[in-house]
Amino acid sequence: MEELDVIILGSGAAGYTAAIYAARYNLKTVVIGKEPGGVASEAAEIENYPGFLKINGMDLMEKFKEQVESLGVKIYTYAEIESVNKNNGSFTVKLSTGDELSGRALIVALGSKRRKLGIPGEKELAGRGVSYCATCDAAFFRDKTVAVIGGNDSAAKAALLLAEGSKKVYIVYRRGKIRAEPILVDRCESNEKIEFIYNAVPVEIKGDNVVKSLVIEQDGEKKEIEVDGIFVEIGSEPEDNITAMLGLEKDEAGYTEVNADMSTNVPGVFAAGDITTGSNKFRQLTTSVAEGSIAAESVYKYINKIKNEKNKSE
Amino acid sequence: MEELDVIILGSGAAGYTAAIYAARYNLKTVVIGKEPGGVASEAAEIENYPGFLKINGMDLMEKFKEQVESLGVKIYTYAEIESVNKNNGSFTVKLSTGDELSGRALIVALGSKRRKLGIPGEKELAGRGVSYCATCDAAFFRDKTVAVIGGNDSAAKAALLLAEGSKKVYIVYRRGKIRAEPILVDRCESNEKIEFIYNAVPVEIKGDNVVKSLVIEQDGEKKEIEVDGIFVEIGSEPEDNITAMLGLEKDEAGYTEVNADMSTNVPGVFAAGDITTGSNKFRQLTTSVAEGSIAAESVYKYINKIKNEKNKSE
Repeated sequence: MEELDVIILGSGAAGYTAAIYAARYNLKTVVIGKEPGGVASEAAEIENYPGFLKINGMDLMEKFKEQVESLGVKIYTYAEIESVNKNNGSFTVKLSTGDELSGRALIVALGSKRRKLGIPGEKELAGRGVSYCATCDAAFFRDKTVAVIGGNDSAAKAALLLAEGSKKVYIVYRRGKIRAEPILVDRCESNEKIEFIYNAVPVEIKGDNVVKSLVIEQDGEKKEIEVDGIFVEIGSEPEDNITAMLGLEKDEAGYTEVNADMSTNVPGVFAAGDITTGSNKFRQLTTSVAEGSIAAESVYKYINKIKNEKNKSE
Repeated sequence: MEELDVIILGSGAAGYTAAIYAARYNLKTVVIGKEPGGVASEAAEIENYPGFLKINGMDLMEKFKEQVESLGVKIYTYAEIESVNKNNGSFTVKLSTGDELSGRALIVALGSKRRKLGIPGEKELAGRGVSYCATCDAAFFRDKTVAVIGGNDSAAKAALLLAEGSKKVYIVYRRGKIRAEPILVDRCESNEKIEFIYNAVPVEIKGDNVVKSLVIEQDGEKKEIEVDGIFVEIGSEPEDNITAMLGLEKDEAGYTEVNADMSTNVPGVFAAGDITTGSNKFRQLTTSVAEGSIAAESVYKYINKIKNEKNKSE
C-alpha cells in the first residue's frame, strides 16, 4: 500500500481547494467524497462567489473538480468511509469500495448534512413530496403548490427557485420574519407567488403514498395546508460519524474545533469547510476555499517537520 | 452629504468581495481604490483560485469588479485617500479628487505594497530597468538578460514569466535555495534559461540612464553581473499611512490585528485581506475573499446593532 502524504475526506469546495493547494505543494494527495461537489452543488444559482456573476452550483463544483484532476490528484467518488484509524503516526482509511488507503495526514472536509424536521410523515414521505434539495427536485413541482419550511438563506433561495415554476409557494417559519440576506428577503416579499406563514411550527405531514398536506401549529391552533411538495430548509448539522472515530473535539453544536492553522486536537488531522468552527462560523464558499488552502499549507509544514525530525534521528 | 453604511478602502480581492457581500446585505456601500484589482491584478497567471484552471490576474479582477458594479456599488478608482476621521460614531473620508464621503463603518482592505531593496541606484533607475512588477514589464525585456531578486513564490513566478521572452534570467537570492511552492521550484530548476545565484546579496545597481549591471556580494566578495533589467521580488509590507490615521493596532511586521470577525481595536473599523493578521497569515486570493465576506457580515451585524440601540433610546 502506497503511503500518501495527505488523504482529504470530502469532495466539496473545501476538500477540492485543499487538494489544489496540496498538489501544488507536491504532496501525494487523494480526495475521497460521497457526492462530488458537496452542498454547493445543490445550489441552483450562486451569485456570491467572486469571479462568477451567476453560476449553477453543479457547474462551479465541476470546475473545481477539473482543477483538482488537472494536477493529477485521484478522486474517489461515491465512496463511503467505513473506518479511519491512526497507528504509528499514519492514518488508514477503509472505503466501502474495498479500497484501503494510508496517509501521513488527514484533512477532514466532510461538510454538513441537512437537518430533519423529525415529525410524523416526514420519513415515510421522503422522496414522495418531501425534499431536502430544491435545486434537485423543483422541476417535479411545476404548476403545483409547495411549502418551504425555514427562514434562512437556503429557504429563501428555495422559495424563489420554486416560484419560477410552481403555482404557489408558502414559506412556513417559526418566527415573525425570515432571516435571510436582505436582498433575498426583498425578492421573496415582492414575488406574488410567495406567501409567508409566520409563527408557525410544522407538526405533521399527511399523505397517501404522496404528500397531500402539511399540518402546522399557529397561535396554539392546528391548521392544515394542502400542498403537493414540502421542502425542508431548516439548516444543517455537521457530519459526525468520522469525526467521532478520530476523537476530534467539537463545539456544543457538533462542529469540529480548529486552530488558526486548521489543525485539530489530534496531531496530523486538519479540518476545513462547513464542518469546522473556523471563519467566525460564517459558512460560505469564500470561507471554505480559504480554510481548504490554509489546511493544505499546514499539512505541508507538518509533513516537512516530520521528515526533518526523521532525518535528524537517523 | 449622504450617509453611507460602509466605506470600503481598497479595491483588491478582499475589498471587492466585501462589496459584493455588503451590497447583498442591502448596505449602502462604496469602494475606494488607488488601482483597480490590487496586487492580484499584477499576476500573469493565477492557477490556485478555485473555479479557474488558469486566468490572468487582471482578467480575474475585472470579473470581481463587474460583479461589484452589477450590484449598484460605486467604485472610486485612482483615488488617493487624503484623510480619514472618526467623529460622533461616523467616519469621514477625504479623497484627492475632492470627494468627501461619510459612513457608519469602514472596511480597511488596502493590501500591501512591494518592499524595496534600499540600495544605491535602485531609486534612480526605477522604471529604467528596475521593476517591481514582472507581469507589467516583462514584455520590455524580450531577448534581454534580467535578474530577479528574491526567492519566494512571486520571485519564481516572475522568473518563469521572464524566461518565456528574455534571453537569460538570473534568480539572485540571499539563501542557499529558493523557498517558493515546490511546483514552481521544479519548473524553475528545469528551465534552461534560468540560472540561480545563491547566497548573494545585491549591493548596488549600476547604469547610465538605463540599468547596466547588478553588483552583488557573495562569499565576502563583490561581483558585477551585466543585466538589462532587475525585478525586485522580496515580498511586501502592509499599507500603513491610513491604518496609522485610524489608530489601528498592528503586529510587529505592521499588519493590522483583527479578531475572528475581522473587527479591529477601533469600533466600526473592520479589516480584510493582505493587510491583516487573519487567516493564519496565509495571504492568498482564497483567504482574501473569505476575509472580505466575513468583514461585510460583521459590518451588517454592527450596523443593525447601532440601529436597534438608536431605536431603543428614542
